[in-house]
Amino acid sequence: MNLLLKEIRHNPLLWLLAFVPVVFVAHKIQPEAHTLHFVLSVLAIVPLAALLSHATESVAAKTGDTVGGLLNATLGNLTELVIALTALRAGQYTLVKASIAGAIVTNTLFMLGASFLLGGLKHHVQKYNRASARLQAGLLFLATIAMLVPSVILVADSPAGSAFAEKLSVSLSVLLITAYALGLLFSLKTHRELFGGSAQPETDEASWPLGLALATLAGVTVLVALVSEVFVESVQQAAVAFGMTQAFVGFIVVALVGGAAEMASAFSAARKDRLDLSVGIALGSASQIALFVAPILVLLSYVISPMPMDLQFWPSAVVMMLIATMTASLVTNSGRSAWFVGVLMLMVYLIFAGTLYLLPPRLQ
Amino acid sequence: MNLLLKEIRHNPLLWLLAFVPVVFVAHKIQPEAHTLHFVLSVLAIVPLAALLSHATESVAAKTGDTVGGLLNATLGNLTELVIALTALRAGQYTLVKASIAGAIVTNTLFMLGASFLLGGLKHHVQKYNRASARLQAGLLFLATIAMLVPSVILVADSPAGSAFAEKLSVSLSVLLITAYALGLLFSLKTHRELFGGSAQPETDEASWPLGLALATLAGVTVLVALVSEVFVESVQQAAVAFGMTQAFVGFIVVALVGGAAEMASAFSAARKDRLDLSVGIALGSASQIALFVAPILVLLSYVISPMPMDLQFWPSAVVMMLIATMTASLVTNSGRSAWFVGVLMLMVYLIFAGTLYLLPPRLQ
Amino acid sequence: MNLLLKEIRHNPLLWLLAFVPVVFVAHKIQPEAHTLHFVLSVLAIVPLAALLSHATESVAAKTGDTVGGLLNATLGNLTELVIALTALRAGQYTLVKASIAGAIVTNTLFMLGASFLLGGLKHHVQKYNRASARLQAGLLFLATIAMLVPSVILVADSPAGSAFAEKLSVSLSVLLITAYALGLLFSLKTHRELFGGSAQPETDEASWPLGLALATLAGVTVLVALVSEVFVESVQQAAVAFGMTQAFVGFIVVALVGGAAEMASAFSAARKDRLDLSVGIALGSASQIALFVAPILVLLSYVISPMPMDLQFWPSAVVMMLIATMTASLVTNSGRSAWFVGVLMLMVYLIFAGTLYLLPPRLQ
Repeated sequence: MNLLLKEIRHNPLLWLLAFVPVVFVAHKIQPEAHTLHFVLSVLAIVPLAALLSHATESVAAKTGDTVGGLLNATLGNLTELVIALTALRAGQYTLVKASIAGAIVTNTLFMLGASFLLGGLKHHVQKYNRASARLQAGLLFLATIAMLVPSVILVADSPAGSAFAEKLSVSLSVLLITAYALGLLFSLKTHRELFGGSAQPETDEASWPLGLALATLAGVTVLVALVSEVFVESVQQAAVAFGMTQAFVGFIVVALVGGAAEMASAFSAARKDRLDLSVGIALGSASQIALFVAPILVLLSYVISPMPMDLQFWPSAVVMMLIATMTASLVTNSGRSAWFVGVLMLMVYLIFAGTLYLLPPRLQ
Repeated sequence: MNLLLKEIRHNPLLWLLAFVPVVFVAHKIQPEAHTLHFVLSVLAIVPLAALLSHATESVAAKTGDTVGGLLNATLGNLTELVIALTALRAGQYTLVKASIAGAIVTNTLFMLGASFLLGGLKHHVQKYNRASARLQAGLLFLATIAMLVPSVILVADSPAGSAFAEKLSVSLSVLLITAYALGLLFSLKTHRELFGGSAQPETDEASWPLGLALATLAGVTVLVALVSEVFVESVQQAAVAFGMTQAFVGFIVVALVGGAAEMASAFSAARKDRLDLSVGIALGSASQIALFVAPILVLLSYVISPMPMDLQFWPSAVVMMLIATMTASLVTNSGRSAWFVGVLMLMVYLIFAGTLYLLPPRLQ
Repeated sequence: MNLLLKEIRHNPLLWLLAFVPVVFVAHKIQPEAHTLHFVLSVLAIVPLAALLSHATESVAAKTGDTVGGLLNATLGNLTELVIALTALRAGQYTLVKASIAGAIVTNTLFMLGASFLLGGLKHHVQKYNRASARLQAGLLFLATIAMLVPSVILVADSPAGSAFAEKLSVSLSVLLITAYALGLLFSLKTHRELFGGSAQPETDEASWPLGLALATLAGVTVLVALVSEVFVESVQQAAVAFGMTQAFVGFIVVALVGGAAEMASAFSAARKDRLDLSVGIALGSASQIALFVAPILVLLSYVISPMPMDLQFWPSAVVMMLIATMTASLVTNSGRSAWFVGVLMLMVYLIFAGTLYLLPPRLQ
């Protein structure tokens, strides 16, 4: 417990934890102040996500390379998963899908691009391990195809069409989870020597003892779930109040909030010329959402949500995911980077964000 | 003749030749048993295709490198050509187009992916000559564009539109055959040293004398043509009986049946760590179908079929061909392979096959 | 002035300057002979473009590397800019957009492909600096996405949709010009050592003194503007007379005419095995049009044209730009070239040109 308090004292990001109780109080005494709820819940989720990711890494560090790698690979996006589950239970399918597509695009273009830019402003040319980037880009490519195919083929809104969409989405989800598991087997077990060096998490912060880490993991997950409910409830009205479209909120805001902690790690690694780590965090997180979080949500939707969710995205989301994947694949092909590569990736992200921001509501 | 019998004795695949007479007998005495005809003709085509490909290679081996290369390049997919010609004469354009698109996708994703997987399960990391893979991928890319452009532009069903489609398809066919011929000139003549090693066919089986090879080539082609008629006639009813859509049968079943013999060679080469050969067979076969078989069918359709066939494919077929080509191009870029690369390619293929299998008939 | 005359005497292309006065005379005495005007103005623009590009290079050579690089980067496509401005003032948006898309596709596929083919027919295998090709391909990729996104999203013809299209186009234009400027900063300043060797212009022709060069630049620009008016006025009727569609004229003819001078330089460099220079001219020109000329035209349209122009292209133009960019990116990936690479690129160009040529007017 002392360790936890010490960590909080030293990390200014964690001071935002003060907003966690504020959210619940505000929700109680001003139940109609949606914009306030939205802002407060965003401010509360960011430090909780940072705690979650630190706890996961601590457990992983204690349990050895293979189990630890598995833990990181399954719990690394716990925040995104919990937010999406809350939205799913509330039947907000558009928000769930927008946040999945947005997390993939944001991690691939913004997190990686900003890492390249921030690293490149300090170091002239940076190198990193191509093998890991190629693997993650390949997995992302597979996931994008799995989301592209149903979206291309499904035009009909007929009953036959929607039964087909459900069956197809379940099959694709199982296939993606299988591919993800085999990818872990490949990178953690049979060909781990190819990925050497890129897998270790940042070791600057002291790792916690197992008990504290597990307790934090459990407690913070509950807190994230509670704050997420306020967030999901308020997001629609807040979007209107800020003049933002719902596509923009799901795609950009949720993705930035959920990924804030990972971004901090990726950027700091890039500044220290440890680009292997930045690429691993950014693309690893994107492929984890595409091949693990998204299919899990589809499968869980049969249990917890009013009606099943499919993997069919609207065309512009598919196009954006496809372009993000292609960009990542082209850019990481050389294993070298300079600041302008980051600028190019951020510009592509800006095109997407700007388009979604300007989009008039009727055209969404 | 003795050699032929010896070959048949040693190769269990060829024992299936027994089904050739059975097809004709069954067709005579049970003219309405379409499902039976379908199964029997599939079982008969597989060994005939293996004989054809062995005969072609034997003739090629006897006639020197350049003429031999030309022969392999033109007759290597004789089975697919004969089946498609039979379907063309019967006016079954959908089946012809599905089998062209399916053969390209199946050879690129399934044959190459399974080679990588089977080879990778035995050998840790495998290397192959990138030059040949790049050439074939480039040719495939050109062919895919040639099939994409008319499909993107043509929306109208008007008479002007269909006259345009015909003119365009003939021009594109001539262009593709020219590109294929120039590609042969490049790889067999002016820059053959770049492709060294990847061109020789497997020499494990003894090559036949020229007379036997030519006689086999002629006789078996006639047999394939006869069996194909039963196959094409029965395929539609069999599809219904098996609960498969026609797109699935054309795209997946015909492609697997027509390519079974080449697959056996490609897989066996991969297990022997001769991945150059596997890549050459898989991508060479795909580009041959795209740049030689398909355009020849368009041109011949003016002579032998009820009405001319164009190069316009339905959108999902174009998307699948485009993705298959891009996958091949990305994957062969490094000239190295491990088992997981094969898994990724097979998963992409599975997505396509699964989608076509689940597709309700009304949405085709 | 003597130098100018000497240059003209030695360069047969410049003898076409005789057509400049002929255009004006013909326009005066036969105001209705549109086909004649079209042919004469094409013949007059080609040598004027050659003079413009020589004058720009002379000024650049006198003003040092950085200012010179900037000058080349902004005035290198002055001819295309002046023609497009004339068409813009006349409200011919389709012609402007077709000529932008056409210049990108023609420079990328035709100029680069023909350079590879002409160089490859003389030299067995040619090498060039990949860094420059990768930078230009990256910029082109960004520009293509900036043109793709509005075209994918905008389906509605409603007032809300068109206000959105205007706002989005202005934002994207500013973003593209910023990316172009940062790209210059990267290649001319912070990382210039990566691009060494590929930036110098051809030094075979003697460079002019600054005074002559500036005077030529000013005088010839005025002449191009005047001839462009005749060209733009006559192009529509001439297209009908030649049986060409307007898309074909804008996409192919204008692009070939405007780029004739650069093509002459690129081809001659390729024959001399200076492929760095050819790649630099071809892709540099394409990215300059996409990231500088096109956005400038959008912004200027608010000042000089009847109504603002947006960045929304018709789908087939976007597909062609996307394919051209992908082809350039795939092809330049290896930094090596042989004649067949050129053939493949020219074939892709031929598919586009042929499709546009055959396109019936109603389907444009």
